[in-house]
Amino acid sequence: MKRNVLIIGAGGVSQVVAHKCAQNNDVLGDIHIASRTQSKCDDIIRTVHDKSAMKENGVLRSHAVDATKPDQVAALIRETGVEIVINVGTAFVNMHVLEACIETGVAYIDTAIHEEPNKICETPPWYGNYEWKRRERCAQNGVTAILGAGFDPGVVNAFARFAIDEYMDEVKSIDIVDINAGSHGKYFATNFDPEINFREFTGVVYSWQGGAWQTNKMFEVGKEWDMPVVGPSKAYMSGHDEVHSLSANYPQADVRFWMGFGDHYINVFTVLQNLGLLSEQPVTTAEGLEVIPLKVVKACLPDPSSLAPEYTGKTCIGDLVKGTKDGQDVEVFVYNVADHKAAYEEVGSQGISYTAGLPPVAAAMLVASGEWDAKTMVNVEELDPKPFFTILDRIGLPTRVQIGGLGGIDQAWNA
Amino acid sequence: MKRNVLIIGAGGVSQVVAHKCAQNNDVLGDIHIASRTQSKCDDIIRTVHDKSAMKENGVLRSHAVDATKPDQVAALIRETGVEIVINVGTAFVNMHVLEACIETGVAYIDTAIHEEPNKICETPPWYGNYEWKRRERCAQNGVTAILGAGFDPGVVNAFARFAIDEYMDEVKSIDIVDINAGSHGKYFATNFDPEINFREFTGVVYSWQGGAWQTNKMFEVGKEWDMPVVGPSKAYMSGHDEVHSLSANYPQADVRFWMGFGDHYINVFTVLQNLGLLSEQPVTTAEGLEVIPLKVVKACLPDPSSLAPEYTGKTCIGDLVKGTKDGQDVEVFVYNVADHKAAYEEVGSQGISYTAGLPPVAAAMLVASGEWDAKTMVNVEELDPKPFFTILDRIGLPTRVQIGGLGGIDQAWNA
Repeated sequence: MKRNVLIIGAGGVSQVVAHKCAQNNDVLGDIHIASRTQSKCDDIIRTVHDKSAMKENGVLRSHAVDATKPDQVAALIRETGVEIVINVGTAFVNMHVLEACIETGVAYIDTAIHEEPNKICETPPWYGNYEWKRRERCAQNGVTAILGAGFDPGVVNAFARFAIDEYMDEVKSIDIVDINAGSHGKYFATNFDPEINFREFTGVVYSWQGGAWQTNKMFEVGKEWDMPVVGPSKAYMSGHDEVHSLSANYPQADVRFWMGFGDHYINVFTVLQNLGLLSEQPVTTAEGLEVIPLKVVKACLPDPSSLAPEYTGKTCIGDLVKGTKDGQDVEVFVYNVADHKAAYEEVGSQGISYTAGLPPVAAAMLVASGEWDAKTMVNVEELDPKPFFTILDRIGLPTRVQIGGLGGIDQAWNA
Repeated sequence: MKRNVLIIGAGGVSQVVAHKCAQNNDVLGDIHIASRTQSKCDDIIRTVHDKSAMKENGVLRSHAVDATKPDQVAALIRETGVEIVINVGTAFVNMHVLEACIETGVAYIDTAIHEEPNKICETPPWYGNYEWKRRERCAQNGVTAILGAGFDPGVVNAFARFAIDEYMDEVKSIDIVDINAGSHGKYFATNFDPEINFREFTGVVYSWQGGAWQTNKMFEVGKEWDMPVVGPSKAYMSGHDEVHSLSANYPQADVRFWMGFGDHYINVFTVLQNLGLLSEQPVTTAEGLEVIPLKVVKACLPDPSSLAPEYTGKTCIGDLVKGTKDGQDVEVFVYNVADHKAAYEEVGSQGISYTAGLPPVAAAMLVASGEWDAKTMVNVEELDPKPFFTILDRIGLPTRVQIGGLGGIDQAWNA
């Protein structure tokens, strides 16, 4: 049983996390938000009070912290007395925040794999490059560290575990499909920080097929998926965190990740990349100024958090899992549909932040209740998915299943 | 009769000008090249010697000058004893160099309209905003100033004058069509300084039709032209210097300029413009650095002068002029075809620089001979086109005519 939460980061996802923690502060206790820029935390706290989101009276406080400094984070953990840290800051800080949690013995939850600012799309094993090197120390110190507990990675890992446990003796393939069929009404925008967003697509695409890593170029392998609610959607094989952990836990299965992209997005991305404007290597202007092109592109693009008010439409993210049961081929699609406008009305964020921000709060509640307090480092598919789905159903992200695969018999996961 | 030439600027066009002046130094006398960066002038001088381009022994010397300072330019004019200045520096320096020429009483020749760094595509009258305000002073001081004596503006103004004088009693329309059917082999590049190049297309498109200025958006009006040698080519109505001077001299005619663009160019341009990356207004990066996006795009694109060695294919630029003769409708297309590879072999530059750089040298030779020594400010259509064509034929840009319009009887202009 653990209580009191420290949220690291003050971006769009942090806002969702803060609202959902506030709505569940009877379970979670005190809530602290820390970021390099304290005023951003204060802005979030203001939106929580505007929506009267606190379930009961309690602590909701902002702090300034440089999350790249484990000592600063550890001091803040001690000062606030939190027992659970939800890290939704930039992926560049993961290892530093994790270190602070190990030092102080509190639970750690994040939503994306660690990245080093100067390395893009490193080669597999991704988790093995950083996080998993701390697994032994977590186990020794009895520290619960739940990696990748957003939607994807996170909920989709639980979808896979659920499909396999409930419907199969043996799993053959896991295809994770992420479709955002929403519209923000801008010429072009990224849903997350452009620096992180573009990094996902500028490197090699890794998938796990036939028991080995396969490499492709981005946008090389595309496929149309006939998704529930949002309909036929084109998606492209991409590298993504969960491909690595699922392939390590289910090495006998093919594991692929498919990200939906419209032709317009691909065109803009292709132009920028071919011109060198997505580069993180500095160029020098004729006037002698040294500039990183990607940072200028980011400055020109809409701030992702500004998209929420006008965002309409839905997201559909799910796992098509194939395997065998009693010698017969079986196929099941486990998924969620979320609505951008509904997310904005509830927590003032767009649907992409909403789907990313709810799951780590559900995970924190399961750590608080003891159900997910693993006392070691785990990825989400190593935990029981059912209590997770139960909380997600209740707080805003219901899980559904199509038995027989895409277009099969559609029902709630616990029907 | 004037002699000795000062070339302002050390870009791709300056290199062509220097080579052509050297090839004709028996007429032009001493040749001086000045730029902010003297070493760029030295580089050009080296290529002139590499090609043994000097017709006879003589002076060919580099200088450092800040061409935005009329005093510095005037001092250099006095020191070198030149009587003709060919200004092929950035369009931002025109008014300053012109001022120095008026002060010292020497002839001035340029190839593009003056621009202020902070203003893009000003409203008509363009020449009237700057150059023409000095016309009176040029006349009073007997200073010859030939404006826009490149290819377009420049040769195309002479094409129009020639078509009207030779074939018509009355002119009804002048359509200038500029097609570069060459290939530089890069994903994307501009043929001139990207800063100047993009400025041409980011503002309102002005054309003179029905005796009044008409406005359109860039790429709004497109048309396929079946051009000699290069074949059918898509071109779009654009704003261009010569539309203004020709409409002032032939107000009864519709005057339009059409620039050829491939779909790929338009796509890249559209993406960059819509994202705000062609803006000359600074943006601030997340790290607090103030940057002008266009300058970063420029730093990422290939240096236009680097394109020459691999450039292949041809340009075709001409005027379709319509009018009446003895009460009958008549139509004539006056044009030139130039070859990128041949240009590179002769002067080490690509065809776009070649077509822009030869005409001001021809103009200088006509000033030297007295035929174009107007002793006032003029645009090219106010001068006799025939001696201009005669020199251009000889030095590398022959003029041809299709009588009856595009696809008509094809012959040399003086056949």
